[in-house]
Amino acid sequence: MINDEIRSLCDEVFPFWGHLSESDRENLMRSTQEVHFERGTNIHDGGECTGIIMIKSGSLRIYILSEDGKEITLYRLFAGDVCVLSASCVLNSITFDVFIDAEEESDCVIVGGCAFAELSERNPEVKIFALEAALVRFSDVMWVMQQILFMSLDKRLAIFLLDEISKRGGDTVRLTHEQIARYIGSAREVVTRMVKYFVSEGLVESSRGGIRVLDKSRLRRIAS
Amino acid sequence: MINDEIRSLCDEVFPFWGHLSESDRENLMRSTQEVHFERGTNIHDGGECTGIIMIKSGSLRIYILSEDGKEITLYRLFAGDVCVLSASCVLNSITFDVFIDAEEESDCVIVGGCAFAELSERNPEVKIFALEAALVRFSDVMWVMQQILFMSLDKRLAIFLLDEISKRGGDTVRLTHEQIARYIGSAREVVTRMVKYFVSEGLVESSRGGIRVLDKSRLRRIAS
Repeated sequence: MINDEIRSLCDEVFPFWGHLSESDRENLMRSTQEVHFERGTNIHDGGECTGIIMIKSGSLRIYILSEDGKEITLYRLFAGDVCVLSASCVLNSITFDVFIDAEEESDCVIVGGCAFAELSERNPEVKIFALEAALVRFSDVMWVMQQILFMSLDKRLAIFLLDEISKRGGDTVRLTHEQIARYIGSAREVVTRMVKYFVSEGLVESSRGGIRVLDKSRLRRIAS
Repeated sequence: MINDEIRSLCDEVFPFWGHLSESDRENLMRSTQEVHFERGTNIHDGGECTGIIMIKSGSLRIYILSEDGKEITLYRLFAGDVCVLSASCVLNSITFDVFIDAEEESDCVIVGGCAFAELSERNPEVKIFALEAALVRFSDVMWVMQQILFMSLDKRLAIFLLDEISKRGGDTVRLTHEQIARYIGSAREVVTRMVKYFVSEGLVESSRGGIRVLDKSRLRRIAS
């Protein structure tokens, strides 16, 4: 990836890129490196400031880890996404540690945390970008937390999907999210989000024709 | 509370107050109201934009609520604190709903969300303040999540405190947080934070002399 390609990725990912001075852009470029990660590589493990990670291809999984090795996936990032929780030096108000693995073979461009932090202290637009990017993840995490703690919709949706395919045969539930929401007493947006989550976990496949169950046994474990 | 008092509270709570134009200050003041809440009052319940809440006295509890009425306390706010999660119109990236109750009789000053949002779109310093204030709570919530999901330190500390008082008699554990951390295999900061949490829950009282157990039966429930 030549310099021009990194520049055009920065331009795509950072809304402030076009407003920076050329010297600020060069400064960021100097602290930027391309990294290729094999599937399963740990990219970030907690406290240190790895930097701002832009994902060119592949996917990253962001999770927390207990002392005894229990993991909880908070969210995933894909091509075009940017990860700021890996840059603790940019976000002073973030005091928790996350872990990041490459879930597939991934190509990333990492902007050094120090250079980014220095710029964000001088440039409010950069600071606002970093804060907003982190805050979006707050919503993701709250969603995971509510699902896990209140044990509600994931279980209800899993039970519903298993019931449907056992009643009607085959492996596909041919209903809209709206219809499913009505059946399980929820809202369409909530069902859509949970289906998306099931898709990302490889449990189901979603298409215009409906929801196809891919992993019945894991779905059963969620339902039980 | 006369206008001057509200102004001096704003000056205390908002780091940007001194940098605003007089017309911006007057505009915020016009959308500001004092509210007194009796203990137990629900102040905010989810989606609507209640506004930015400044706490003059008392305390507020911020929690999430499941469909079947299960609550999880995320954090508490006290005199001098400011609550931004109650202003969904200011923070577009926050998509989850929190509930807020007055846990004690509380005096608050509430700045209207619309006026604040409008200002924050024009003034990066105001925007950065709101985003950072929200992001600090992300860390609080992650802490709660880790404690609950990994079922670790709250349980270990409760077991330790109960063991100690049953071994030594009385109701006070005369050890430093450092010493307790070593006994239960944790770090001093982590123990300090958990003790603070136990104090806020009315389970123990903390002083220079040690930690006094106030509610043995609830502590036993945590330990079991």
